[in-house]
Amino acid sequence: MKDLILTDKKKMELEEAVKRCSSWAVSMVARANSGHPAGSLSSMWLYLAAYDVADITPKNCDQTDRDYVVISHGHTSPGAYAALAYYGFVDPMEAIADFRRCGSAFQGHVERAIPGIDWGSGNLGQGLSAAVGYALALKKRGLDRQVYVLMGDGEQPKGQVAEARRIALSQGLKNITVMVDYNHIQISGRVERILPVNIKALWEADGWAVLEADGHDFASIYDGMAKARAMDVPVVLLCHTVMGKGVSFMEDKPDYHGKAATGDLYKQAMDELGQPDWLEAAAKLGDRAPHTGRHVSVERANLELGIPKTYPVDKKTDNRSGFGNALADVGSLNLGVAGKTPVLVFDCDLAGSVKTAQFAKECPGWFVQCGIQEHSTATVAGAAGCCSVVPVWADFGVFGLAEAYNQQRLNDINGSNLKLVLTHVGLDVGEDGMTHQCIDYVSLLSNSFGWKLIVPVDPNQTDRVTRWALKEPGNICLAMGRSTMYPLSGQDGEPLFASLPFTYGKAHKVGEGEDCTILAMGAMTSAALEARAILEREGKKVKVYAVSCPLEVDMEALDEAVSTGYVVTLEDHCYRTGMGSLWARAAAEAGLCAKWSFMGVHRYGDSGPSDQVYDAMGLSPLAVADRIKKLLP
Amino acid sequence: MKDLILTDKKKMELEEAVKRCSSWAVSMVARANSGHPAGSLSSMWLYLAAYDVADITPKNCDQTDRDYVVISHGHTSPGAYAALAYYGFVDPMEAIADFRRCGSAFQGHVERAIPGIDWGSGNLGQGLSAAVGYALALKKRGLDRQVYVLMGDGEQPKGQVAEARRIALSQGLKNITVMVDYNHIQISGRVERILPVNIKALWEADGWAVLEADGHDFASIYDGMAKARAMDVPVVLLCHTVMGKGVSFMEDKPDYHGKAATGDLYKQAMDELGQPDWLEAAAKLGDRAPHTGRHVSVERANLELGIPKTYPVDKKTDNRSGFGNALADVGSLNLGVAGKTPVLVFDCDLAGSVKTAQFAKECPGWFVQCGIQEHSTATVAGAAGCCSVVPVWADFGVFGLAEAYNQQRLNDINGSNLKLVLTHVGLDVGEDGMTHQCIDYVSLLSNSFGWKLIVPVDPNQTDRVTRWALKEPGNICLAMGRSTMYPLSGQDGEPLFASLPFTYGKAHKVGEGEDCTILAMGAMTSAALEARAILEREGKKVKVYAVSCPLEVDMEALDEAVSTGYVVTLEDHCYRTGMGSLWARAAAEAGLCAKWSFMGVHRYGDSGPSDQVYDAMGLSPLAVADRIKKLLP
Repeated sequence: MKDLILTDKKKMELEEAVKRCSSWAVSMVARANSGHPAGSLSSMWLYLAAYDVADITPKNCDQTDRDYVVISHGHTSPGAYAALAYYGFVDPMEAIADFRRCGSAFQGHVERAIPGIDWGSGNLGQGLSAAVGYALALKKRGLDRQVYVLMGDGEQPKGQVAEARRIALSQGLKNITVMVDYNHIQISGRVERILPVNIKALWEADGWAVLEADGHDFASIYDGMAKARAMDVPVVLLCHTVMGKGVSFMEDKPDYHGKAATGDLYKQAMDELGQPDWLEAAAKLGDRAPHTGRHVSVERANLELGIPKTYPVDKKTDNRSGFGNALADVGSLNLGVAGKTPVLVFDCDLAGSVKTAQFAKECPGWFVQCGIQEHSTATVAGAAGCCSVVPVWADFGVFGLAEAYNQQRLNDINGSNLKLVLTHVGLDVGEDGMTHQCIDYVSLLSNSFGWKLIVPVDPNQTDRVTRWALKEPGNICLAMGRSTMYPLSGQDGEPLFASLPFTYGKAHKVGEGEDCTILAMGAMTSAALEARAILEREGKKVKVYAVSCPLEVDMEALDEAVSTGYVVTLEDHCYRTGMGSLWARAAAEAGLCAKWSFMGVHRYGDSGPSDQVYDAMGLSPLAVADRIKKLLP
Repeated sequence: MKDLILTDKKKMELEEAVKRCSSWAVSMVARANSGHPAGSLSSMWLYLAAYDVADITPKNCDQTDRDYVVISHGHTSPGAYAALAYYGFVDPMEAIADFRRCGSAFQGHVERAIPGIDWGSGNLGQGLSAAVGYALALKKRGLDRQVYVLMGDGEQPKGQVAEARRIALSQGLKNITVMVDYNHIQISGRVERILPVNIKALWEADGWAVLEADGHDFASIYDGMAKARAMDVPVVLLCHTVMGKGVSFMEDKPDYHGKAATGDLYKQAMDELGQPDWLEAAAKLGDRAPHTGRHVSVERANLELGIPKTYPVDKKTDNRSGFGNALADVGSLNLGVAGKTPVLVFDCDLAGSVKTAQFAKECPGWFVQCGIQEHSTATVAGAAGCCSVVPVWADFGVFGLAEAYNQQRLNDINGSNLKLVLTHVGLDVGEDGMTHQCIDYVSLLSNSFGWKLIVPVDPNQTDRVTRWALKEPGNICLAMGRSTMYPLSGQDGEPLFASLPFTYGKAHKVGEGEDCTILAMGAMTSAALEARAILEREGKKVKVYAVSCPLEVDMEALDEAVSTGYVVTLEDHCYRTGMGSLWARAAAEAGLCAKWSFMGVHRYGDSGPSDQVYDAMGLSPLAVADRIKKLLP
């Protein structure tokens, strides 16, 4: 761990660096004529201190055994880029030339494509959660590493910040130092006028230690950081600053929260900072492709996946148990084994229902209770996945995805490695009723570009995809209902998915026929097969595909489905936004023509036993058979 | 306002009522063999006190000039239904017979279909926000009315609760009394073990007064409520209770958080409460249709909409200004006019960017600053809309919808009346970059069954739909980008949308042709028309439809589009989840066959000037023309 001694020489160097970096930041905004200069200046002391003190370098920043720096007020990106340039992560002239330039990694809000940026933010209130995720992962890996978080004052009221504070405390994280740029100005004006908040009281109410510092005096900042490191609770350092510090006409002016200084004002700013005209220097780079930064990726987990468990076809089992048993199996196989990747299972007070209680019992050290705080949990778990652990967050669909949708979107943007297990999806929530029915999960994840979604057909497939997902890098969602079911059997009467290897994106033909095709999502496959049997007795032959990867259209299956002329999609999901519409869209794009019928959820559902709720929604096997009879000529 | 004097007679009646209502609640859960009995019992004193003290009756509960009672811990519905039965809102035997019964309004979590339920919850942490919405609406309407909120202790850490506390304080709301059922047990066990939280400190840190009471002693509860009413800050009354109170084997047992007492245990419970076997009594109702409750609706606002403003076709204007000018116009026309419906405009620190600053200046009393607290703001505004005001919340798309998606889902379930204005949608966010690009709003709202979505084509249509939406009941979203544009002109060169009446769900043909059809969403229509002009010079005739209501497929337009054989959809929205897929799905269902091409966003976008960002995404007029040339034979 780097020491925190500030020599006079170091202090002088840093004070010079402030002027240099401030001028770069102001130049970036001037060049783009867009951006947030004043907050970048007030944060500059904090940026330079954090990246000096933290053990993060251009060399080690792609590894995960190091300190972390998370920037929560991502709109002060010019300040961050300038500090990173000073420490050699990026080229300052490239940053000036490419800031907010189309195609460049120097986006308006910090992204991980820039080396040294550990979390892409811009949506405020997320940074502390990401930092808690990193701090937790480092602690669980047994590493004595620090995480530094820079925040703005305007974002302090975001509820997610308070949630993250509590997770940090309940997890006993002492390796986090938060530095707040307390400049009293947010975009609409003075913080106290927009929404009065007692920032100090809020942190103290959640058990954090609050220290204060002069945010424009390195001695004061380093002293605060040293004190923070010595304390045995997480600490927030309230750094009193002046927005726009160092450029007279920007100081304490809300106007410059998001306005560039151009022309003579730009020259004046450079003069006041004692710096040259960097715009001319940057222009000398001439016509070149923008700096695209680095590609961040997640390494494959080192895990023993054990032997798949096969559930007999004559005994009803729920997919939740298929998941929970496999998770506990993999957990206990790897816990305490040297070199294995820690599997951290996150819970929001539903372990019993989402079947992670067994894992919690067998691997208590890898179980993370976050309380009823879904927004923060989503980000904490997502960030942890970027730090060489495999985070698994199991929750009801409405809480893990609908409630935390934007957090999952940002996990996608950050290229994290979350295993999100949604139970009680669709109408299969038992009697809980409409507020608990997650009928939009396919839609929500299909807005992303990275998320994989698997809706297992039965407990045997659930067991296998659970083991597969734990090792597979990237954000992966498993979605399943609550009810028990008979595992599917093949022609030979044996458990079908015990022998079928899982390939992401492959649909499985589970019934042959040429009059019509049913594309059934996940566990709805059983209903589709029952409907098929009903129709077979009436001489109608229906092809049935089990679709467990709705986001990935299996064109071969789609082609064969459309060839029957009639396609019925079956899912307990909103009728117009689920698997059916994704697959119909692909068919339309391919010019594959057929008559489609979309069976799904067309109103908020009832509260009652699941089978009755399905009946009432018109999704029973009989209803499917009737729909097909009406559809066929 | 009802007095708070508790006579000995009243006290005795209420104590009898507790036994009676507790037995009904236990019976509901026993009959359904599903539900949450123990929390219903610990809350029973609070339910009976709140519905006694509040001026809400079976007669006035459909009106909006009354007190409100919001239940945040919606899973204790049996307790709520029992108290409502005691006060004559519902029939107790029907509640027992229909609780969690398919098709009935007595859902597992409270819904507004039951008279006396003012907010459908079940997703925890929402109740206080809804209460703040009601309290704010009542205050702005000049009514001296109280709002009572019942909460659980397990939900206290939800960040949204803290956000709501701050809005209540900053809005000077003194007409809220929160009652927390502090029974120390949540579903996974003891609150202190799941996530240690200093509940008292949290409320005090946000400036609330904290009072404590014995939650099983009416004298103590009424005394606390009287003190609360007398204080000039919002008050939380921490009511110390025992989960399962009154039934020995349920008392302080986490097990009964969500488990029914059946058979002999049920009989024992009735004996201990000194009550008969209600299951037999309920069974006597015999075979009957379930109780479907009431239909809640929102009345049409009483507003003077003024004279539409027409923007000239030779001057670039942004749709945001079209909205902001119309809003300020309607606001100042109605402010202070007797009998007019208050228009409350909510802001999360972006008034300047979302163009509500003019309204704030002209109608400061109707402008509500909520700070950077989107989750709570969404619910506060949504609930206010159920209380005879027109709430308008303008925010960036990613904050107003992606961040608050689940809150907007619950606004839909609650049949509220929010006017959600999303600016900076699509790729049109200026240089802010990927985190700020809202490319999923069509998808998110298409998961709902009530939300209307309008994506205006130009400033003239924006002006007209803004005025229309302010008066139209229900949840309505307007979505628009950031850039300026030339308003569309008709054949006569006059502003097209100045003369076209707005009809929700109607697509407008703005270009004739038979070789191919472009379905363009909102402001993308301009690019479609440019592409059409390019192709026309090459002898290709392209039909162009302006689609401003993507959720409502105009079958006539779709039919004509498909008749050209080739359909190109154009939207700066995720390519597989937007207007294109909704309309292609409808075509597939109708058996309308064509070759489709979906032009949209296929990766996270760049940070740069909007026109360059569109180019880079392949959505420029030239790119559209090229796509069509490749598509056509």
